[in-house]
Amino acid sequence: MILLSGGLDSTTTLAVARHQGFQTFAISFNYSQRHSIELDSAKIVANALKVERHLILNIDLSAIGGSALTDQIPVPKDRKDQEISSGIPVTYVPARNTIFLSYAIAWAEVLGAEDIFIGVNALDYSGYPDCRPEYITAFEKMANLATKAGVEGKLKLKIHVPLITMSKAEIIRTGLKLGVDYSLTHSCYDPSEQGIACGRCDSCLLRLKGFAEAGASDPLRYQER
Amino acid sequence: MILLSGGLDSTTTLAVARHQGFQTFAISFNYSQRHSIELDSAKIVANALKVERHLILNIDLSAIGGSALTDQIPVPKDRKDQEISSGIPVTYVPARNTIFLSYAIAWAEVLGAEDIFIGVNALDYSGYPDCRPEYITAFEKMANLATKAGVEGKLKLKIHVPLITMSKAEIIRTGLKLGVDYSLTHSCYDPSEQGIACGRCDSCLLRLKGFAEAGASDPLRYQER
Repeated sequence: MILLSGGLDSTTTLAVARHQGFQTFAISFNYSQRHSIELDSAKIVANALKVERHLILNIDLSAIGGSALTDQIPVPKDRKDQEISSGIPVTYVPARNTIFLSYAIAWAEVLGAEDIFIGVNALDYSGYPDCRPEYITAFEKMANLATKAGVEGKLKLKIHVPLITMSKAEIIRTGLKLGVDYSLTHSCYDPSEQGIACGRCDSCLLRLKGFAEAGASDPLRYQER
Repeated sequence: MILLSGGLDSTTTLAVARHQGFQTFAISFNYSQRHSIELDSAKIVANALKVERHLILNIDLSAIGGSALTDQIPVPKDRKDQEISSGIPVTYVPARNTIFLSYAIAWAEVLGAEDIFIGVNALDYSGYPDCRPEYITAFEKMANLATKAGVEGKLKLKIHVPLITMSKAEIIRTGLKLGVDYSLTHSCYDPSEQGIACGRCDSCLLRLKGFAEAGASDPLRYQER
């Protein structure tokens, strides 16, 4: 099972899981995110990479708020590298990966799956606490105590994080080697109504820097560059 | 923050938190449960016990299924004590408490709260894995790694489980001592359309046994007794 946002990281993660020989199921979330257009990419990617089933759940995180992605808080633009890498930004969505992974273990239990892939990485990232290896380890431990499958010893849930120590450039190189078409993906936190990436939010900046460092060109169109 | 289903356990837990002097916020879930009438009880209880805010989130667990509470699987009736206490029944909802607690830590983070109360107990219970103390400990550890508040050391999230070692009779005695009006609560997994408890599902049976052992009478009306 792959948590698939339709972004660069989760798409690469899906490609890695396919390459490792897994039968794949994708789960995506319509969480009233500002950039819900990413779900269109998730559908296209799931289809292109031939997942068995793609579940899109509607969950309303705007009732909880507290983030620039789900609340009336502007998305920061044009931040420098050192700003992006220092502290936790307002685009952090409280407990988002925990909520997403919780649904994933629920569905995994119903399907009888034990391998869950999430495209977190803790190098070229936005400082989100729920992208760090120590968090993933703690979640995996909890998950095996939380579920019937884990308790009965029928399944051992494993959270796979193939990108966790990769730089963005390494992620892109890995994906390109596996034939990922990054024109299908969507990374921008604050796209135009037509879905065109802004090119200025942290997510766009990390992506563009990654492509530059990988010596590749980003096939996406951007609004202002 | 209290996870409030409107049942006997969560209502008692709310009364305990109030008694301990906490300002209280309640969170409930409309998860397409068969017994969604429990949300009416949750609202009435939240009002009677004067919570500051009551958040009801709509989350669709029927898309995931796999339980008699969210899927087309009949609720078992008239089971004997030893049947109830052996194994994990079909009313188990995969990863339900993990999903609920994940939303709770998200909202706690937005509110700046650090105390989360959940009315799980591992004695007179249905054998659900996510009601056991070792699960709660693992969740708490994960939660403090998952959140901005935890990582920055501003808050230390604590999962309070005041009922965890109590029998159902002790829970009821505790609540009665604190003035809980159990006629406001709802426990049945499979109520009639009018919301009348069946008196025969595991949840009704555990409740009735608890009242009998506490030497108190259950103020609820039942369909068949």
